[in-house]
Parts: sequence; C-alpha cells; structure tokens
Amino acid sequence: MAPLKLIIDTDPGIDDSMAILAAFHSPEVEIIGLTTIFGNVPVAQGALTSLKGVAKERIADFVHGSDGFGNTDPEFSQEEPLPISAAQFIVECAAKWPGEVVVLALGPLTNVALAIHLNPDLPQLLHKVVVLGGAFFVNGNVNPAAEANIFGDPDAANVVFAKAPNCWVVGLDVTHQCQLSRRQLDGLQGVGRHGSFLSAISQFYLSYHKHVGLSSYGMDAVFVHDAAALSAVLRPELFQWHAGAVLVDTEGAFRGHTLVDEGKKEWVGMNEWQTRPKIKVALSVDAKALTDLVLQRMSQ
Amino acid sequence: MAPLKLIIDTDPGIDDSMAILAAFHSPEVEIIGLTTIFGNVPVAQGALTSLKGVAKERIADFVHGSDGFGNTDPEFSQEEPLPISAAQFIVECAAKWPGEVVVLALGPLTNVALAIHLNPDLPQLLHKVVVLGGAFFVNGNVNPAAEANIFGDPDAANVVFAKAPNCWVVGLDVTHQCQLSRRQLDGLQGVGRHGSFLSAISQFYLSYHKHVGLSSYGMDAVFVHDAAALSAVLRPELFQWHAGAVLVDTEGAFRGHTLVDEGKKEWVGMNEWQTRPKIKVALSVDAKALTDLVLQRMSQ
Repeated sequence: MAPLKLIIDTDPGIDDSMAILAAFHSPEVEIIGLTTIFGNVPVAQGALTSLKGVAKERIADFVHGSDGFGNTDPEFSQEEPLPISAAQFIVECAAKWPGEVVVLALGPLTNVALAIHLNPDLPQLLHKVVVLGGAFFVNGNVNPAAEANIFGDPDAANVVFAKAPNCWVVGLDVTHQCQLSRRQLDGLQGVGRHGSFLSAISQFYLSYHKHVGLSSYGMDAVFVHDAAALSAVLRPELFQWHAGAVLVDTEGAFRGHTLVDEGKKEWVGMNEWQTRPKIKVALSVDAKALTDLVLQRMSQ
Repeated sequence: MAPLKLIIDTDPGIDDSMAILAAFHSPEVEIIGLTTIFGNVPVAQGALTSLKGVAKERIADFVHGSDGFGNTDPEFSQEEPLPISAAQFIVECAAKWPGEVVVLALGPLTNVALAIHLNPDLPQLLHKVVVLGGAFFVNGNVNPAAEANIFGDPDAANVVFAKAPNCWVVGLDVTHQCQLSRRQLDGLQGVGRHGSFLSAISQFYLSYHKHVGLSSYGMDAVFVHDAAALSAVLRPELFQWHAGAVLVDTEGAFRGHTLVDEGKKEWVGMNEWQTRPKIKVALSVDAKALTDLVLQRMSQ
C-alpha cells in the first residue's frame, strides 16, 4: 500500500517535535508538508489568532521552554517557508491528491477551519483529519472543562467537527494514558539520528511534569500527546473509537469543552448534536503498544 | 443512633413515589416533611418556576403519565398543605433541629436555592443535602449535555453547589447502573403495604423504558434514580464519592451540564471551579446492594 500523504499542522512544542521526528521515520506516511499554527510558543507562519481574531492568550512556555524546544536553543533551518498560507497549502494538496492526504492537526484547529472555509468540499477530498484535542470523559488540562488545543480556538473546532465527517479525534481521555518515562527518554541518548536531540529537549518537559509551578503532575514521565495522535494515523487499530457527534462550548467558563453524544439514547426534541456528523472519538488505547511504537520510531 | 430527620423535596413522578414509600419504611430516617417542586408533572406547591422565572419547559408526562403515577389515577390526600413555602419550611426545620436535618432533593434545586437565599447559614445548619441530579462523566438524559433535574434550574444548582459544602450529588453516572427489572417489579404485587401500588404505577414507566416514543432505552427494566438518591442517605458507603468543585453551565447548548474538578491537576491561572467548595459526587455504586436495599424497603 502506498504511504498516506501527511500534512502536519503543528504548534511548536516538545511533544510536537517528538511526533514530527517519529513521523519522518514512519514508512506508513510520506510527509508532504508542515504547516504552523499559534500554540505552545509564538510562531510566524499560519494563523496567528483564533477564528474570532483572538491572539493566543495562554502561551505554554512553562511547559515547552521559550524556544519550544525546552530551552535547548537548537539551530533553525534557513529555508524560506512557502509563499502561501497554511490553509491554502492544505486545500491545494487535497486537490492535487484527492483521497490520499491526511491532515494531522496538533494545535488549535484554525488553519483546518480556514481551509474548509476556502473549499467547503475539502473534507471529501481529504483521506481523513486526525485531531489532537479535546477532553471528553475526563477533565481538561487548561481548566476542568477545556483541553489546550480546543481552548485555543473553540470556534474553529466547531467548524471542523461539524463539516468533516472523516475526522478522528484523539483527546486527553487517551493521551493521558500514553507516557514515556525518564528512563525511556534517557535511553534515547546516542540512539539513531535524533535520539540525543529528543532526549535533550525532553528534560525541560520532564521537569514540567514533575514539579514546575502549580501545574505539577508529580510524575517522572511525560505525556506523549502529539505522538499519540500520530499513532492514530499509523495504527488506528490501537484505539477504541466511538462514532458520535461532537459539540464544543464556545462561551463562558466552559469555553473549549468538548462533549460527544454517546449514542445510548434517542433524544426527545432537538439539540445541536443531532445536526452534526458522527465523527470518531478515541475513548481508550493500548498504551503499551502505542508507546513502544513511538519509542521505536524515535530511535531510528 | 437517632434517625436522621428527612425532608424530601420532590417533583411527583413514578420513581419519586418509589423513593418516598421506601423512605417511609426506612428506620434510618424520620420523614419530617415533603416539599414539592415543579418537575415531571405540574404541581401546586413550592416553586413553580426556576430561579430565572422560567416555567417548566419540559413536562415529562411521557415518562410518568399525566398524573405522575403512570395514569393509575390514585386517590389523593385531602389534607391541606402547610401555609408556608417549601423554602421557608426547610429553613425552619433546620433552625429547629440544627445538624439533624437532611434535605433529599429529587427535582430541580429551586426550593433549596431559595432556602439558602432566605438563610445563607442554612448549609451549616443542615446535616447534609443529597441531590439527585447531574451527569458528570456520562451523557445527560435531556440531551447529551444535561440531566433533567439540573436542566430544570441550572442557576439554582449553581447556588447549591457553591454554597453547600455538605452537598452529596447522585447523578446519572450511578443511577443508570441502578435498575429494577420487570420481574422484580411484578414480584411486588400483593407484597407489603404498598407493593401492589408500586407495581401498578411501574407499568407505565416500564413501558417508557422499553419503547415509548423516540426515547426508548430498549430495556425491560426501569432506572431507580430517586431511590438511588435515597440510598445515598441511608447507606452512603454503597457509593464511591469524589470530593471536587462542581460548576453548572447555564447558557446555550450546554445549559444544565455539570462538570466536576477531578483534582488531578493544580491549575495555572484562575477558573470558576477554584472558588467553590469540594462537594461529594457519586462516581460508582454497588448497584446490586442498592437495588436489593430498595426492593426490600419497597416490600415492607
């Protein structure tokens, strides 16, 4: 089978780097582009604000370091970015390879929503959209209601979940199960092409998970959110998926909250979930198989 | 130990009747009053509208029958109700027996919120408030977001959850585990003082759960929501309780949605959960022991 053509829409951060490097070592996919979205640290390309025009209000430099690489100050590429927008790039790729392109969205969904706005037929042209985001039957990570990526642009998430029936959503319900320990990360030193880099940038992220500020998880391991979402592209069978309509709350204390219809009841009267397609939501995962896969790809 | 003094604040309905009759046969409690709240069918006493002044917009006569007793047209008491409001009655009982009174709220929380408004010290005077309501890590029953009692008056629920630290909440997470089968209900015929009545009014409710309208659960059993909440008064040890702040969404498509802080993370920045007391939320239940208890009490 030909590899899927993968566009990674990413907000630079440590676990994004893990996912990107793991993707480059995954024969199941061919990376045809990286697009950027505001997120963990400020970036220059792609959308800089949410659909409503709100600039990033929560920069997670306490998680990822001020350079997005755990303050390791790596050398950056001198290559020029493409002269078109991230949304336009997604639209053009989908038109060029209908049915073959997967968008892996690792940050707020602004670029994907804008791409659907540019071409409403985009979802039908894409193989699928895999989204890292949401917290369905668990608390969020920004506040009890909201996960950070969806919180970054709840309106964009509502566009994507309403318009892309072939959307697969990987949220905290499963990514909080997927952890790499300090020992596993230390073991990457000197291994393969990027092992030492990945191990180095992980130190800041490990420290955050152990004891930084108020946001301590008190663990000696890191969540591999982004690589978990990549794994949903590479090996969807590692997850249990529920097909149900998803609505995002866009106002007030619950802004960014994601809620899926479990499909256990036919409703009396109308509600907003009924007008939406049943998308796929990951409810559980074989965490051992997933982290083994991620480590293996990061060790190439 | 002296029995707890119990006030049941109820919206007439079939499973309310089960809970009330079971309570009358429970030595752990002494019922000192019944107060009424708008709910499953229209009633004349207590609050007739939500705190915002909204009249009941969703009469569940398709669940409970137009008389609230599965259309069995029972004889009603000719006794006059008390000349004071439900809220005033709660406040007076709590003042009379400080620390001894339990309010079991089986409908929307309007009366309890109004009582707290009459006397802000009420929560400290009550032994506890046990609330039937909410859907925390499961879908609601009005729509995917909201459970019916909280949906009936989300503002009142927010008052109670913010002001009563000794509040114990029994939601769909556990009540959907608590079912009595048609065989169990049929077995009540001719048993004890109220078995035949309970069996008779259950027929309509069984029919609703099996195949009425769109709202079919496709089961040959009924949920014993209200008696499950009573059981939380009688035997709190049958439940697993999580202590966490609860906020209710009051606007839009998520109106009536309840969300509890799981307490797994200390938040960066402020959110509305942090200003609230940790109340008790039932997350799981020994359903077999609970339904055995309820059946036994209904068989007296």
